[in-house]
Amino acid sequence: MGAGSDVSDLPGLLEESRKLLSSGPKLETTDSDVLPIGLGFLLWGAPLQKTLDIISQPGNIPAAVWLFAPREQSSLADWSDGIRKYTKGKTKVWIQVCSVAEAISAVKSAQPDVLVIQGTDAGGHGGAQGAGLTALVPEVIDTITKICSDDSSIRMPSFNAAGGISDGRGLASAITLGCPGITLGTRYLASHEATIAKGYQDAVLRASDGGMSTIRSSVYDTLRGTTDWPKNYGGRGVINASYHDHMSGVDWEENKRKYGEALKSGDSGWEGEQARLTTYAGTGLGLVTKVQPAGEITREIREEGVKALKAAAEKIARL
Amino acid sequence: MGAGSDVSDLPGLLEESRKLLSSGPKLETTDSDVLPIGLGFLLWGAPLQKTLDIISQPGNIPAAVWLFAPREQSSLADWSDGIRKYTKGKTKVWIQVCSVAEAISAVKSAQPDVLVIQGTDAGGHGGAQGAGLTALVPEVIDTITKICSDDSSIRMPSFNAAGGISDGRGLASAITLGCPGITLGTRYLASHEATIAKGYQDAVLRASDGGMSTIRSSVYDTLRGTTDWPKNYGGRGVINASYHDHMSGVDWEENKRKYGEALKSGDSGWEGEQARLTTYAGTGLGLVTKVQPAGEITREIREEGVKALKAAAEKIARL
Repeated sequence: MGAGSDVSDLPGLLEESRKLLSSGPKLETTDSDVLPIGLGFLLWGAPLQKTLDIISQPGNIPAAVWLFAPREQSSLADWSDGIRKYTKGKTKVWIQVCSVAEAISAVKSAQPDVLVIQGTDAGGHGGAQGAGLTALVPEVIDTITKICSDDSSIRMPSFNAAGGISDGRGLASAITLGCPGITLGTRYLASHEATIAKGYQDAVLRASDGGMSTIRSSVYDTLRGTTDWPKNYGGRGVINASYHDHMSGVDWEENKRKYGEALKSGDSGWEGEQARLTTYAGTGLGLVTKVQPAGEITREIREEGVKALKAAAEKIARL
Repeated sequence: MGAGSDVSDLPGLLEESRKLLSSGPKLETTDSDVLPIGLGFLLWGAPLQKTLDIISQPGNIPAAVWLFAPREQSSLADWSDGIRKYTKGKTKVWIQVCSVAEAISAVKSAQPDVLVIQGTDAGGHGGAQGAGLTALVPEVIDTITKICSDDSSIRMPSFNAAGGISDGRGLASAITLGCPGITLGTRYLASHEATIAKGYQDAVLRASDGGMSTIRSSVYDTLRGTTDWPKNYGGRGVINASYHDHMSGVDWEENKRKYGEALKSGDSGWEGEQARLTTYAGTGLGLVTKVQPAGEITREIREEGVKALKAAAEKIARL
């Protein structure tokens, strides 16, 4: 669950989650007083003490938190220390980084349980500048492995890859690069459970050639008024009339006015040549072609990943 | 051998290659009248007829040509048809593309033997906009496979991945994404055989955090005067004082003057805070840490790739 930069809705959402989960199967890997969910926070905006007070309430302790986009790298330590203290170490700390430098800083200062390595293909916000998983993952893993081997007081994290992965082939490739786990966002935009507008979902399904049909920029932040993101982040989204207008010199006032009109028009604000509304998605959207239940997507990717790995290993065995 | 956009040196280089190869082992897979080398051409500049006259001379027929960066997509057909005619089909045609749209156009018009899928992590010139291999390779393969399955008159190419691959993990990941072959550039910059300045090679060895230390732009083309590249391409290189000056508003005249001075200073033009000379390299440069013989690099990557695939498959088998 993405709490984002504002936790005012969080207590209600946690209560709803508890109700939904009470009728589901229990996870054997999680303590009985731990809610088997993860919560994501944008550190440049989320209030630390208020968050700690909420997640340490009985019944609210999350299995994991996902920390991203601090205004200062030093706040990673405040958050991870606070969370471990308030949840008595029951909550696993995941930290997402976009470069080798950020990985070093996160591991040394906050010792995350899981280090999420986000490549530049990711949809929505990520490093304004960066590399794809092919180059980024091995360099981060080699660097962090050396740091942890040189200093035994630093905990070796588990590695997770995010950005541009849409199916089992992407899962298999991440595993060979050295990540036992992956994270997908764009693919789940096309799930029944995604709480996004139908116009947004349809725009993701329609788009193809992800490197050409999306761009990472701050244009959509400006149009939406979400201007508190630190400058070293940008949001990747589908290129539409808002972006074209900005690039051809239309001023912000006029572009915002048109954006506001599109907002009022609802789903049609994502349609046709005059589509203007924000469609955050990664370059992997070309492989997203149908809406499925989220659980089915997860199982499918896992099965296809195993198949892709076995097929590749068999090819190699014949050499 | 990169003939590039100017073939005037090509006859001499081919003669030198023949001499070098005459004392080496024969390749069983190549006809005796075919030179076991590949030649790369930049189509926006290289002259077609002159090239055909050179490569069809007895003793000059290359095993493969690599075609990249046409000014118009239509010239791909002129080149591939001409090469097949002049070399009686003995030369394999490789075409490098940077997007799904370019892949479709290349396969339909020129039916390459090998389609090289170049991700945005690649060093030197590539698509000004694009995706990393994780997203790009599966979307290209699915799209081309469907086209060839819908129309049996279109030849299914072999797929090759380029961009951001530096070691065996990258090779293994490309294979799982669906490419049986890979191409590396940056890693071979650190080979004994690379014909580049020592200052350039040292700058590649020094740099790390490839997504942050390199950028794709046209700044270095402008400084070097190589301004004939079509606008949809840009060159990825190490960020240095030339780039910082451009971004902080230093005008072209002054920036070119400083670049010229750096050129005169030789290897030191790549050194220190005031490094200014072009250092084209991909985001995978963080994994490039020593100079080796080219053959050793090739063998090492192949062996590590097999190891990475087997290790991943074993992990999966235990699930």
